[in-house]
Amino acid sequence: MSHETIRICQFGAGRIGAVHAANVTRNPDCTLRYVVDVNAAAAQSLAEEHGAKVCGADAALADEDVDAVIIASSTNTHADLIEAAARAGKAVFCEKPIDLDLARVDAALKVVAEHKTILLVGFNRRYDPHFQALHAAIGGGRIGKVELVAITSRDPEPPPTDYIRVSGGLFRDMMIHDLDMARWLLGEEPVEVFAAASCLVDGRISEAGDVDTAVVTLKTAGGALCQISNSRRAVYGYDQRIEVFGSKGMLRVENPKPTTLEHLDADGTTGDKPLHFFLERYAEAYRRELSHFVDCVATGAAPLTGAEAGRRALVLADAASESLASGRPIRV
Amino acid sequence: MSHETIRICQFGAGRIGAVHAANVTRNPDCTLRYVVDVNAAAAQSLAEEHGAKVCGADAALADEDVDAVIIASSTNTHADLIEAAARAGKAVFCEKPIDLDLARVDAALKVVAEHKTILLVGFNRRYDPHFQALHAAIGGGRIGKVELVAITSRDPEPPPTDYIRVSGGLFRDMMIHDLDMARWLLGEEPVEVFAAASCLVDGRISEAGDVDTAVVTLKTAGGALCQISNSRRAVYGYDQRIEVFGSKGMLRVENPKPTTLEHLDADGTTGDKPLHFFLERYAEAYRRELSHFVDCVATGAAPLTGAEAGRRALVLADAASESLASGRPIRV
Amino acid sequence: MSHETIRICQFGAGRIGAVHAANVTRNPDCTLRYVVDVNAAAAQSLAEEHGAKVCGADAALADEDVDAVIIASSTNTHADLIEAAARAGKAVFCEKPIDLDLARVDAALKVVAEHKTILLVGFNRRYDPHFQALHAAIGGGRIGKVELVAITSRDPEPPPTDYIRVSGGLFRDMMIHDLDMARWLLGEEPVEVFAAASCLVDGRISEAGDVDTAVVTLKTAGGALCQISNSRRAVYGYDQRIEVFGSKGMLRVENPKPTTLEHLDADGTTGDKPLHFFLERYAEAYRRELSHFVDCVATGAAPLTGAEAGRRALVLADAASESLASGRPIRV
Amino acid sequence: MSHETIRICQFGAGRIGAVHAANVTRNPDCTLRYVVDVNAAAAQSLAEEHGAKVCGADAALADEDVDAVIIASSTNTHADLIEAAARAGKAVFCEKPIDLDLARVDAALKVVAEHKTILLVGFNRRYDPHFQALHAAIGGGRIGKVELVAITSRDPEPPPTDYIRVSGGLFRDMMIHDLDMARWLLGEEPVEVFAAASCLVDGRISEAGDVDTAVVTLKTAGGALCQISNSRRAVYGYDQRIEVFGSKGMLRVENPKPTTLEHLDADGTTGDKPLHFFLERYAEAYRRELSHFVDCVATGAAPLTGAEAGRRALVLADAASESLASGRPIRV
Repeated sequence: MSHETIRICQFGAGRIGAVHAANVTRNPDCTLRYVVDVNAAAAQSLAEEHGAKVCGADAALADEDVDAVIIASSTNTHADLIEAAARAGKAVFCEKPIDLDLARVDAALKVVAEHKTILLVGFNRRYDPHFQALHAAIGGGRIGKVELVAITSRDPEPPPTDYIRVSGGLFRDMMIHDLDMARWLLGEEPVEVFAAASCLVDGRISEAGDVDTAVVTLKTAGGALCQISNSRRAVYGYDQRIEVFGSKGMLRVENPKPTTLEHLDADGTTGDKPLHFFLERYAEAYRRELSHFVDCVATGAAPLTGAEAGRRALVLADAASESLASGRPIRV
Repeated sequence: MSHETIRICQFGAGRIGAVHAANVTRNPDCTLRYVVDVNAAAAQSLAEEHGAKVCGADAALADEDVDAVIIASSTNTHADLIEAAARAGKAVFCEKPIDLDLARVDAALKVVAEHKTILLVGFNRRYDPHFQALHAAIGGGRIGKVELVAITSRDPEPPPTDYIRVSGGLFRDMMIHDLDMARWLLGEEPVEVFAAASCLVDGRISEAGDVDTAVVTLKTAGGALCQISNSRRAVYGYDQRIEVFGSKGMLRVENPKPTTLEHLDADGTTGDKPLHFFLERYAEAYRRELSHFVDCVATGAAPLTGAEAGRRALVLADAASESLASGRPIRV
Repeated sequence: MSHETIRICQFGAGRIGAVHAANVTRNPDCTLRYVVDVNAAAAQSLAEEHGAKVCGADAALADEDVDAVIIASSTNTHADLIEAAARAGKAVFCEKPIDLDLARVDAALKVVAEHKTILLVGFNRRYDPHFQALHAAIGGGRIGKVELVAITSRDPEPPPTDYIRVSGGLFRDMMIHDLDMARWLLGEEPVEVFAAASCLVDGRISEAGDVDTAVVTLKTAGGALCQISNSRRAVYGYDQRIEVFGSKGMLRVENPKPTTLEHLDADGTTGDKPLHFFLERYAEAYRRELSHFVDCVATGAAPLTGAEAGRRALVLADAASESLASGRPIRV
Repeated sequence: MSHETIRICQFGAGRIGAVHAANVTRNPDCTLRYVVDVNAAAAQSLAEEHGAKVCGADAALADEDVDAVIIASSTNTHADLIEAAARAGKAVFCEKPIDLDLARVDAALKVVAEHKTILLVGFNRRYDPHFQALHAAIGGGRIGKVELVAITSRDPEPPPTDYIRVSGGLFRDMMIHDLDMARWLLGEEPVEVFAAASCLVDGRISEAGDVDTAVVTLKTAGGALCQISNSRRAVYGYDQRIEVFGSKGMLRVENPKPTTLEHLDADGTTGDKPLHFFLERYAEAYRRELSHFVDCVATGAAPLTGAEAGRRALVLADAASESLASGRPIRV
């Protein structure tokens, strides 16, 4: 690619911010110019590590030498930052979700549309090489028409209860990724959502008003079905598997493992467990996601996971929450 | 085992009847005495193959030298034959279902109870060595408390439409096996059933009033969840997999394959597809099922899959049908 | 098949004799008429179990109602029994080896040839469904020309030292199976044999004059190569794998396992170990081997593993022994 | 780690040079200062890509701001450059082999010893995470005492015949990697080497005086055995597997694949083939190898693959060549 280097300001210097900053540094087509964070020490440390400068939000957005922003700050800042960046003419890479409230999402997306802003929403799984190969095989017709999708998604351990309280709940915080994958793989919009859930892992999650174990059924207008299975705790590590069944065959992605080493003894055949969590499992996905964003900024192309993806996944998560509360399937 | 040989009369000389008759012949602890079938030629042929005699139903049941019956005739004869055999003092091995109508099932089970009849209902999957190892591992505490069960069950091709019409529908005919497995693996009764389904495989199935692609969600009083996925057609063969997720780990059974042969070339790594259908996949299960029945007859023990199993699976299948018709989850 | 039932006299009522007798009983095309064994109690017990009679060797061979013999007695009786059976006009199924001495083998095969006796030598692995699929794939051209064969063959535990002393040594007793497989899969005769070996498992094996860990390299006139790896002790069970590499791809057979059950927890992913030993691993191979023998007797066809196979495998085993003794590769 | 950045001069700007240069740039603990190559355009291009300068060999070695050199130039330059770098007081990372001639190797290693030079020889496979896990498991006692090692190593396609002519032959050029792995995994030195080989892939390789298909047997003083299998052409990609069998179990490393995607249809179950060649298969190994080198330079520790490793592997490769030429096993 012969385009100029994209100059980036990143909001947020936490765990996922560190991932994005490192990927920016590694990517020859973009440069990290500023780091913005309310935690000055964190901002300073991350900026130094990558040869960037600490900056305030307003100053960074006012700088004409900034082409794009990465929003990796806390969820309640996303919509405001998206709007501000859009108004400042910057391209936006925003971690999911845009906001936990659909009306706020719609307001932000209105600003994005008005300014024709390039917006990538961080549904990182679509950039994972395993799932990309799955999607490409479906598109290539290898299994005919998609009839059933099964998504298994389990975290190794629950987040802190304090986080649970502000997370928007399992459906908007965790399953939203799977709902986005479901839309992508089904190839048509779900029109019905049914949720069943329990609190089996930790009673404090229930006290915080949330569930930790949940299954959802989706149905499209064309009759294709999808089952999603979530747990906040899998002792064997991050469990991220997808199976797509169609009229001419079946495709499935298993958990990649750190090594292929296998041990046999009198107790059986033992291999590695899955990679521990999303930082390990989706390291390559984060790199590809950034590369895709950089390409979109350079060429003006629409990101694979754009405004509509961000909005529709939240609509489905809301519907799942409503289904759980009402005990009935919800039409969307 | 030192008990006497169990003398068996078999009703039904069709496909599954042939399996049971062969297993009786191979089992040193039982003998096939009579074959009963409205199709005289089929009865004659099967009887000859196994050194048995053709007989009428009444005469066979009246024969004091018959200890037990295997009912492998068409579904609409099951309840009557169970009652007649119970009254004649014979032990009963009956293919599922007892009947498609719950009231008729209850009436038959009343007779069974009155005569203290040994009744095994043919939920063959519980006798499969793979699933038995799965159940034993759960019982042995290897995954702690069961939280999520996922059952995938797909036939290679749909039955004839004529059969579909009298089958009782996908839930009572096909998914009833999975509902029984769900009860067995969950370890407690489901109290809520939600079904979603489509006709995607063959329009004639829809014309016959049935669906061919279905998913069901079960929830127990304790909050454990179960997802079942059914299709009447899988081009790669009989797909019978189960996964059980618990507080301390996960267990799963994959499809066994005919051979372990693997081929590598420029197109990738290729192995066998799953065994074609139930006769191949469950050959050993049918043998173990019969051995278990013979043991129960000899010792008076209650079969693993008895009257209650037969009844409860139908209750769940009825609930799934009602859920599909009403569009809502059903309490059971 | 429309041929008459083959009437069989079996020599040997030990462990492998019990396998063959059970398979004869199960096979609808043959019948076990006599059991002959120097251990009268063992003969009586096995005969009773299968509805056969105990008999002396001479009387059994003189009986015109015996069509064929199975020789499953100790190795030092094989050649004499083959000759006697051949002279009596019986077809012969003889466990490997024909004899440990090549001159004695040649003498016996001369008698076999003179009487046009049908002789099957018990190289059971060629009848295993996994290896048959492997051989068929090679024959079907799936990997082009065979260039490299790798055979791994390890027993779960060594035989008693007393057996080791009369066994003819690892190459004639154990590796002879692999040498037969090598010939079959290479598709041309090895012309050079090199052996390296050690006693690593049990010092008493060394005291008995034998080795317990051995590798052999074979080379054919065409330049194809084969590596064989043997150990008398594998703590994880019977290890029987073969890999065939060719100009257009690679085929390999892995160890089949009792179940497909997989367990995941914090320690990794665990599955079954291989089946314990040959009785489990080759149960189906023994059944197919007998069926093949019965077919050959009925049709007059030459067995897949006949006189030449028995002889050539011993020639290779002798060469391996000589290579080990001399420290040099041996031309054959 | 708190050490200063290591400043590196790299000799060689070809394919493997590009890998090392990129890894230097990515590694925060070292910097690429100079690129030296007789091909001025290649040197210029690689230097520019990584912010380094083109330089002559003498000037680079005379520069006090250079701490270490990476030698990735053609084989015939290795020994001279090692000596020059040693004399200049630089640490040395040299691609294998040190030289094709043992006397020249010994002369170079004498200079290395005299100057106490840190020398890492590029046996990259020891730094592969899969093989490192294998080695660690052996060291951790998981399989007891090592008795048998089996190494499979096949390239996707042969190098150009021109390269074959100057390569030193398959044993010194290709199998040398496997011989190094054998030493590392056996844990003791091989004392006997037997080789068998053919030219089956391409007649021009034979015309160039080399073989393309080879197997080697190694034996240690303690009696442990090792089998190596090489081919210059595997249509399914780079085949790099190792199995280690011991008194208490077995360990094996399979080929990692690009994705875990699996496809099932009427033709079977299909997955990815192995990664295409060493650049893909050992990408992570090259990164870890460089990190290890940088750590050794910083701390003065001896590299895992040092002078002795480089020398001993060549001794074994020479022995294999001699064995092939003489038709006999060779003592080393």
